Amino acid sequence: MTMPDVLTFAKEWMERVLENGDTAIDATAGTGRDTLHLAHCVGSGGHVFSFDIQTEALEQTKQRLDKHLLYERTTLINKGHEHAAAQIPADHRKKLKAAVFNLGYLPGGNKTITTRTETTIQAISQLLDIIKPGGLLFVVVYPGHPEGRMEKDKLEEYAAALPQRDIQVLRYEFMNQVNHPPFLFIFDKRQE
Amino acid sequence: MTMPDVLTFAKEWMERVLENGDTAIDATAGTGRDTLHLAHCVGSGGHVFSFDIQTEALEQTKQRLDKHLLYERTTLINKGHEHAAAQIPADHRKKLKAAVFNLGYLPGGNKTITTRTETTIQAISQLLDIIKPGGLLFVVVYPGHPEGRMEKDKLEEYAAALPQRDIQVLRYEFMNQVNHPPFLFIFDKRQE
Repeated sequence: MTMPDVLTFAKEWMERVLENGDTAIDATAGTGRDTLHLAHCVGSGGHVFSFDIQTEALEQTKQRLDKHLLYERTTLINKGHEHAAAQIPADHRKKLKAAVFNLGYLPGGNKTITTRTETTIQAISQLLDIIKPGGLLFVVVYPGHPEGRMEKDKLEEYAAALPQRDIQVLRYEFMNQVNHPPFLFIFDKRQE
Repeated sequence: MTMPDVLTFAKEWMERVLENGDTAIDATAGTGRDTLHLAHCVGSGGHVFSFDIQTEALEQTKQRLDKHLLYERTTLINKGHEHAAAQIPADHRKKLKAAVFNLGYLPGGNKTITTRTETTIQAISQLLDIIKPGGLLFVVVYPGHPEGRMEKDKLEEYAAALPQRDIQVLRYEFMNQVNHPPFLFIFDKRQE
C-alpha cells in the first residue's frame, strides 16, 4: 500500500465530489492536465471553465482536450483567476462543485511568470463564496521557489483564519521529502 | 462532500492496507475502538496484538471485543508499547501490515497517565523496523494537552528526519479548527 501523492489524492477527490452535470473551474490551466481530468469528472452533461493568463498555456490545454475529444465540455478563458468568479454564468454558478488551483509557473514555460499571492487569495476567496455547499476547492502549493514560499505562508495565514463553521481546511503533506515538494490544501465548503 | 475527519481517514486506510490473514498492532488499546476496527480488518484468518499499560483500558477493550464476538482474534497485553516489537511472535512479524497509535490519555480515565514522548518514538521506531514493506503505521496526535504538545514537536522532528527512500510520512490535518484538534501522521514503509 502506498499513500497517494499530492496530485493523485487531489484527483481522487475531484472524482468523488463531481457528478455528471456539475460545473468545475480550473483556475490555472497550465498544460491542461487538471482541465482534462475535470472534464472527465463532470461527464457529458457538465462543463469546465479554465483560466490562464498565458495564451501558450491555453493552446496546450486545447490540444490536450482535442486529443481526448473533450474540448466541447470546456470554455478556455484568457484571464487571470481573480476574474473567474465574475466570468461564470449564473446558471453554472448553481452547479459549481469544484475548483482547482495548481500554483507556480507553467511547466516548460517562462519561470518568471508565476501565480501571485495577492490574486491567488483574492480568487480563492471569491470562488469559496460562489461554490456550492458540499463543494471542494483544491490548492496545490509549490514552496520550492521564492514566490511559492511566500504564497505558502500567506495561504496558511488565510486558511487558518477561515471560520470552521463554514469552511474546513485540510492540509495533506508529505513531510520528509527533499526539495520542498508540493503539498495540498482542500477547502471544504460545508453543507448548510 | 465532506472530507473525512482524522479518525475516519485513518480507519479507511486501515481497511485498505489490511487483508484477511494479516497481523496488526494496536499500540494504545484505550477503550478498544481501534483494536475492534483492526480485528474486523484482519478477517477471520488474521490477528491483532493490543497493548496498554492500564488494566482498566484492557478490560474495556475486552468487553468491546466480546460484544462483537471478536476477542478470539486478539491478544491483549498489559505492557507499554515500547515492548510491542519484542512481544510479537516471529510468525506474526512476517504478516505485520499495520500498527496504530492513538496518543494521549484514556478517555474517561486518569488524565495524568498519558503516552510519553520518549517511549512513543522508541515504539514507533521499533515497529517501523519490523512492519512489512507496504505496511502503514498510524499515529493520531493530540496537541491540546501539554505532554501532547511536546509529543507533537518531537514527532515532527523524528518524522522529518526519516529517509524518504524507506519511509514516507504523510501529515493529514485540519488547520482552521479551535482547541488544537488531533491530527494524523501515516508512516508508509515503502516496498523494496
